[in-house]
Amino acid sequence: MRTVQYLGDATVAVAHVEPTPPPRGYVQIAVAYTGLCGTDLHVVHGSMDSRVTTPLSFGHEMSGTVARIGEGVSGWRIGAPVTVMPLSWDGTCPACRAGHSHICQNLDFIGIDSPGSLQEFWNVPAETLVALPDGLPLTHAALVEPTAVAVHDVRRSGLRHGDKAVVIGGGPIGTLIATVARRFGGEVVLVELDERRRAQAASLGFTTLDPTSVDQVAWIEEWTGGAGADVVFEVSGSAAAVRGATALAKVRGTLVVVAIHGVPREIDLQRVFWRELTIVGARVYERADFETAVELLAEGHIPADALITRIVPLSETAAAIADLEQGLAMKVLVDVADAS
Amino acid sequence: MRTVQYLGDATVAVAHVEPTPPPRGYVQIAVAYTGLCGTDLHVVHGSMDSRVTTPLSFGHEMSGTVARIGEGVSGWRIGAPVTVMPLSWDGTCPACRAGHSHICQNLDFIGIDSPGSLQEFWNVPAETLVALPDGLPLTHAALVEPTAVAVHDVRRSGLRHGDKAVVIGGGPIGTLIATVARRFGGEVVLVELDERRRAQAASLGFTTLDPTSVDQVAWIEEWTGGAGADVVFEVSGSAAAVRGATALAKVRGTLVVVAIHGVPREIDLQRVFWRELTIVGARVYERADFETAVELLAEGHIPADALITRIVPLSETAAAIADLEQGLAMKVLVDVADAS
Repeated sequence: MRTVQYLGDATVAVAHVEPTPPPRGYVQIAVAYTGLCGTDLHVVHGSMDSRVTTPLSFGHEMSGTVARIGEGVSGWRIGAPVTVMPLSWDGTCPACRAGHSHICQNLDFIGIDSPGSLQEFWNVPAETLVALPDGLPLTHAALVEPTAVAVHDVRRSGLRHGDKAVVIGGGPIGTLIATVARRFGGEVVLVELDERRRAQAASLGFTTLDPTSVDQVAWIEEWTGGAGADVVFEVSGSAAAVRGATALAKVRGTLVVVAIHGVPREIDLQRVFWRELTIVGARVYERADFETAVELLAEGHIPADALITRIVPLSETAAAIADLEQGLAMKVLVDVADAS
Repeated sequence: MRTVQYLGDATVAVAHVEPTPPPRGYVQIAVAYTGLCGTDLHVVHGSMDSRVTTPLSFGHEMSGTVARIGEGVSGWRIGAPVTVMPLSWDGTCPACRAGHSHICQNLDFIGIDSPGSLQEFWNVPAETLVALPDGLPLTHAALVEPTAVAVHDVRRSGLRHGDKAVVIGGGPIGTLIATVARRFGGEVVLVELDERRRAQAASLGFTTLDPTSVDQVAWIEEWTGGAGADVVFEVSGSAAAVRGATALAKVRGTLVVVAIHGVPREIDLQRVFWRELTIVGARVYERADFETAVELLAEGHIPADALITRIVPLSETAAAIADLEQGLAMKVLVDVADAS
């Protein structure tokens, strides 16, 4: 079978390997689509080399169908459409024992710490499978994982119906957070530097702000009648956004740290103190977030076609990654079965 | 009557002024004791000059007795022992309307924004009075306000019985937070650079750490069986403490920002994300915190005598402030009625 592997040294290549049968407790999936995301770029850039064993078939945003069922697994049929929640926890660490197994202290993130979905046949633990409804196109279903991230982020924010939310950063995750927050009853404004991303968000019905041309603090203050936003999502990963984010939140408002900040960031703790703000980190998702994401996609609440810039064959994965690095695409899906 | 005033330019002086009768809705208190705190130092250093009208009788940690009762006030008798919750809110701003009047967006903090308790007779709005039980010495009662800060901080932390808490900073507020957290069922370790402060905390039964000689991350990890602390209180105000604090908390643990940080601080947002930490700001107190503080003091749960380094007459206020600036005292009370 064909697979795309990270070989180290920022190198990605198509390889041919023999599929192995699913071990006991595993299911083999015929992968249909795998979406490429920021985490995959980090892998390819070598930022995850301390976790990665090369060659690594990466990828974790996916859809497919059940191809083979390992011993000891029940409840699945060959051909069933599925996606995967790519987390495997040890069940014994303090975080797992406290009920937070999704961020197990020894978490195996499948697609980084172990092989991912950029391969034609992928063996995964049966408990990671998530069933898909028949009517959901497998292209759209490849967005379940990032949508589950957004659902988790919005849940962590404590957003309630009628709340006013600011999303800083209009890439795929920012746009999905904005979409989920709106679906959950929030009024949303999206802050984004890039004109094309603002235009796309506007086409999806969002109010957008260019922080270089608008005084965002004054704008949010007027929008909220002098209160400040109920919830602010920091999705941009930029130092400037972190410095400014606390000024946008109301008294007792919440700032959600969604982006990965590789270095310590300056933050206005005086404002955190003064307004009794809450800052929460939000990482990956729990099972309920995945199930909600499937529902949102199946019911048409996620603008999947707008978010999927294009679909490429496996052989063009490296070129697609280069485009993503240059900001030339929102979401690119790899058609794993396309042999062209 | 005599009063201590901040005159601007880092100058403090005793003045003689005529007392005025309490206006309608006000009560006049014969002030017994006023404690000096970090906020008073900020006033005297000029850091609050944008809020202060000079000459300002400052001070807000106090005890006294009702001396005169203004028109329209009922429920108080002359001679009743009282303290004051020194907050006055507008009741109409978005924060007040949302139920957070203690951090009203236009808060009048009495003792900074309006005259405080370093005067023999002090007029305050009747609704700021808090009754004291007869058996509580007025020296101890001068600690109600800082104890209420500590109660508020511990409540904001969400600390539960059996939780493990780290308090960074062993000054008066840090020691009070440690005391309240222990009283509320927490196990507490106190991190403090100063040897004398560590010795005092140890004499109160607390485990202490010197972060310059102990690897505090390793120590906390061993103490918590690899989990990390449930709650971390940042009371030191130091940049290094903020940089290190996130490493001490467990998955889904809470970091409370108690200290005032005058400049933005670097914080490890990667750790906030990775462990889904919560950071909360905690400022002043609510009425319930004050009432709990009175109870804790009346029941002997606060080591008031250990915290009160000494009691000085009004005429020695400036010298006492100088001692506090040099770290030569924990809490100094001014005996406002002492004319020596």
